[in-house]
Amino acid sequence: MRRWLLPEHIEDVLPAEARVIERLRRAILDLFERHGYELVAPPMLEYVESLLSGTGKDLDLATFKLVDRLSGRMMGVRADHTPQVARIDAHLLNRQGVARLCYCGSVLHTVPAGMTRTREPLQIGAELYGHAGLEADVEIVRLMIDSLKAAGVDTVHVDLGNPAIYRAMAADLTVDPESAESLFHAVQQKNAVEAGPLAVLTGLHGGTETIDRARKDLPSKPAIREALDSLAKLAAAVAGPGVEVSVDLSELGGFNYESGLVFAAFAEGSPEALARGGRYDEVGASFGRSRPATGFTMDLRQLAARSKGNGRRAAILAPLGEDKALRDEIARLRAAGEVVIVDLPGHEDSANELGCDRRLERKDGKWRVT
Amino acid sequence: MRRWLLPEHIEDVLPAEARVIERLRRAILDLFERHGYELVAPPMLEYVESLLSGTGKDLDLATFKLVDRLSGRMMGVRADHTPQVARIDAHLLNRQGVARLCYCGSVLHTVPAGMTRTREPLQIGAELYGHAGLEADVEIVRLMIDSLKAAGVDTVHVDLGNPAIYRAMAADLTVDPESAESLFHAVQQKNAVEAGPLAVLTGLHGGTETIDRARKDLPSKPAIREALDSLAKLAAAVAGPGVEVSVDLSELGGFNYESGLVFAAFAEGSPEALARGGRYDEVGASFGRSRPATGFTMDLRQLAARSKGNGRRAAILAPLGEDKALRDEIARLRAAGEVVIVDLPGHEDSANELGCDRRLERKDGKWRVT
Repeated sequence: MRRWLLPEHIEDVLPAEARVIERLRRAILDLFERHGYELVAPPMLEYVESLLSGTGKDLDLATFKLVDRLSGRMMGVRADHTPQVARIDAHLLNRQGVARLCYCGSVLHTVPAGMTRTREPLQIGAELYGHAGLEADVEIVRLMIDSLKAAGVDTVHVDLGNPAIYRAMAADLTVDPESAESLFHAVQQKNAVEAGPLAVLTGLHGGTETIDRARKDLPSKPAIREALDSLAKLAAAVAGPGVEVSVDLSELGGFNYESGLVFAAFAEGSPEALARGGRYDEVGASFGRSRPATGFTMDLRQLAARSKGNGRRAAILAPLGEDKALRDEIARLRAAGEVVIVDLPGHEDSANELGCDRRLERKDGKWRVT
Repeated sequence: MRRWLLPEHIEDVLPAEARVIERLRRAILDLFERHGYELVAPPMLEYVESLLSGTGKDLDLATFKLVDRLSGRMMGVRADHTPQVARIDAHLLNRQGVARLCYCGSVLHTVPAGMTRTREPLQIGAELYGHAGLEADVEIVRLMIDSLKAAGVDTVHVDLGNPAIYRAMAADLTVDPESAESLFHAVQQKNAVEAGPLAVLTGLHGGTETIDRARKDLPSKPAIREALDSLAKLAAAVAGPGVEVSVDLSELGGFNYESGLVFAAFAEGSPEALARGGRYDEVGASFGRSRPATGFTMDLRQLAARSKGNGRRAAILAPLGEDKALRDEIARLRAAGEVVIVDLPGHEDSANELGCDRRLERKDGKWRVT
């Protein structure tokens, strides 16, 4: 066994990729800030009771468990930020009105979400708490679109769904909890055979005209009518230049804590969604304070993989020396934003390996970049 | 049990602290970049054989262990970046000359390093590989000082040590590995009684004149003379305005992988070191490629705790509306760097709670900030 081999679906981020990730990270966090979203950073570890509170079996299975040496209790390594940020909104900020929060950090998954996916996504996302109206979903979906545009996606394909429709229909069936979960996954995976009485949902996807089809094909219950109305309004509000909207009524959300509208964003050349989100009013309830919530999340590493790598910044190679004029000039150049690398003895002529295209040299008694 | 209680020594980072951390993170990573240090991001998880390769028992004890569901093998959650970055230098970059690398990410500790410390430090640091000379240590210590100055520390107290002296003296004793470890900790903790024949080291700390005292008090071996010479040269090279240098010969480094010069930085009002580093030429060797290495690390959260919290950025409250002129003006203000928060229906007059000091209002048919 080679000592330096990494586990499957676990990778190092090397300089070229790290540069792209860092650039996107700053651009997106700045975008969030300018929309009033405040940064929080929940811990990597929590007791499982709080980490998995109000979430489904999928998140539980994706979560690494550890024993806390201090308390002897079971802790989990977060596999998702959303329940943690909901806890912060519910118990730490404790605001009466709207709270806008955002985050950026690694999460770990026991098994990858797909064959080509990492087990350590770098999640970045935004959440809006305290407003139950469609206006909040519109703000969040627009922010998701702007984030992807900031990451260089020209045309954002937004796919909208509303699990409230699935739930209104499932409520009429009498199924035990285990069958309910199989049914959920069957619909989610568009498996019409196993979806049984809900098979109609698996065929309702396509352009926004799908909403009109659904009005005809689905039972005429008030909950379903309202859910379709919200979908239609959201679709109209987020359409615009460089945005293509589609509807998918078998899209039920990620870790099945979503309670209302759900959305995903795709881009050409990326078969997997680049961003996912939705309304999950019930997560906070498990912490004893129910607050409406809507938000979205992205994996910065997945996003960076699409971006054209920008090369290393051109640097200036400077000689080593304690000469005050030399040290002052190096400090001045760095303060002006230049990368200045000092050549260490024994490694001269390493300008190429270090990516330097200029040199700091003494000419006519002065230090000059040549 | 309250569901939202966090484990001991595990905390959320709320908006005010997150803002300070983000500001410091960017300032320090930019400083590293301008010195030619390239960002890398090793994974949170590795097989224990690679994660703990070439490191001591302390790091092993501090590392959370997990079973990999894919391979059935034992993995560890990183408790320190340095061995991971050494692995990247040794096997992924594989450069012949100098490599300058930096990182910023969370690490987890099974038990806190001290009563007031977190179990999830946010490590930020820089490493210089491939140069065995003192010039590399000088560059790294100066970068450590500049990082702390960038974080607002006026006077940086730098404490220098050289475990090569301890090792040269311990080599003359015949002790089994277990006693060697107790001896190491006794010297590290300045416990003169338990340090036995090495007790002389526990008294050698103070200003740079300590080096002259050591020349008289310590055995006259070439290895010790050379180690004291390096200390004297490093002390002279890093002294300067706003820097106070002291020497401590019982300072042996953190997780006992350090092989040469070690350094720590302190600031007034912080009893614990704000930055630590040293030379650890032997970590790469365990990966089959021995490379000289020197570097330092800091905990951004500890650093941020000293910084005066800068308030939330003043924001502009804008009304909700689909009016094109309004949406264009909001987009223009945000592109200009302003924070613009849209007031959602039902939460009017929330300007205070949202931290807004201005409003976007329609006057004479135009949208204006008032």
